[in-house]
Amino acid sequence: MPRYALLVEYDGAPFVGWQRQASGLSVQQVLEDAGASLNGGVPAPTMASGRTDAGVHAEGQVVQIDIALGLSPERLRDALNFHGRPHPVSVVKAAHAPAGWSARFSCTGRGYRYRILNRRARPALQAGRVWHVQGPLDAEVMHRAAQHLLGRHDFSAFRAAACQAKDALRTLDRLDVERQDDEILVRTEARSFLHHQVRNMVGTLVQVGLGRRPVEWPRQLLDGRDRTLAGQNAPAEGLTFLFARYPEGLDWR
Amino acid sequence: MPRYALLVEYDGAPFVGWQRQASGLSVQQVLEDAGASLNGGVPAPTMASGRTDAGVHAEGQVVQIDIALGLSPERLRDALNFHGRPHPVSVVKAAHAPAGWSARFSCTGRGYRYRILNRRARPALQAGRVWHVQGPLDAEVMHRAAQHLLGRHDFSAFRAAACQAKDALRTLDRLDVERQDDEILVRTEARSFLHHQVRNMVGTLVQVGLGRRPVEWPRQLLDGRDRTLAGQNAPAEGLTFLFARYPEGLDWR
Repeated sequence: MPRYALLVEYDGAPFVGWQRQASGLSVQQVLEDAGASLNGGVPAPTMASGRTDAGVHAEGQVVQIDIALGLSPERLRDALNFHGRPHPVSVVKAAHAPAGWSARFSCTGRGYRYRILNRRARPALQAGRVWHVQGPLDAEVMHRAAQHLLGRHDFSAFRAAACQAKDALRTLDRLDVERQDDEILVRTEARSFLHHQVRNMVGTLVQVGLGRRPVEWPRQLLDGRDRTLAGQNAPAEGLTFLFARYPEGLDWR
Repeated sequence: MPRYALLVEYDGAPFVGWQRQASGLSVQQVLEDAGASLNGGVPAPTMASGRTDAGVHAEGQVVQIDIALGLSPERLRDALNFHGRPHPVSVVKAAHAPAGWSARFSCTGRGYRYRILNRRARPALQAGRVWHVQGPLDAEVMHRAAQHLLGRHDFSAFRAAACQAKDALRTLDRLDVERQDDEILVRTEARSFLHHQVRNMVGTLVQVGLGRRPVEWPRQLLDGRDRTLAGQNAPAEGLTFLFARYPEGLDWR
């Protein structure tokens, strides 16, 4: 069956997450049901580069979808967007997948952005897209603390209790913290992340940014490998899946 | 009665506009009702620098509010945000107003941004914040056309039929069009605008950007002063009130 790659944007707010679940509507279900009309009435099977949690957004999620009907990528993109209405899921681009390509297993790099609105007043325009932290955050000290987490480590201290990965060894390539006016932006990149790793790292860095913990604390937590000690798991709504990297590239249309 | 200046952010989607109306909830009503508890139970009278239409957003609307209770600007900001819940209106800053100051009549410059999402796929994350135009837009030719509208002119061609201004003479100081990835951003500034002027100018420039009209067309419309000939009134949801300028400045807290 022909496989396509999709570049997908979604607002995570109304969904139980990427993954299909009995408990509610998922992004996966929206796409698979939209694909059914192009697949002989049967939901078109999909897999994503990163399984985002409930409430997490995506600007550049990459999804594989297998569709019986032989369509051009442009027609597939338009048809999925038509049938996916009115849900806030949009197929921005589509491509024929290379032979043997998997959105999940061929992916060699994933990038996320976490947005914190750091001011006294509650968000209005950015409600649902940011974590609102009222106390003043020192972005420079957060950035310094973050640099001590880069490289290959056992990230058990920042993993969810429910994380199903076999081991917690991961290589963190980027964890930058920067202030832009009222916002603190955290950008991170790795080949792969553990469940809740980004949000746990952000929650921990915020404790440092508020001055409640020293700059060395995140690294001490990392070395201790105890997942009960890290800062709070930062709320899902501040997190956006930005991109997935593939060595061979994709011919996006 | 003490007068304060407020710097206000709002999502225009759920409102009938800035101005209080019998037909539904306005931003003005949210603020005045929130102020009632600080004003002896009576709604606290307000006036805005710019009366935005239904669906138009604001990042930097400036509002005057008269409150009987003598509060610090910080306390007023926090109290209005508390009592204004859960509406997407946020008082970002507050200041004591200078003697004789009026949010509307002291204002010497107003700035807006209009966002167009220019791609085939419908918006997901930016739904309600952009005008979705599918055909490819040439931002450079739009920008060139826009420059011929700068300066002092009779803007009758770009005014709403319902516009109540005495005359249509306005001085347009800035009308820049720029592409950023999938978005076309239009930024404009003037001492004041006519009703629907920004959205009518944007709708007209889009006709040029799509190649349906020549680059000279917006200026020809301007010179013709016939308000039935301009391009469509661009949708409210793409428009954001960015700032209001005052010669004396304000001591924001």
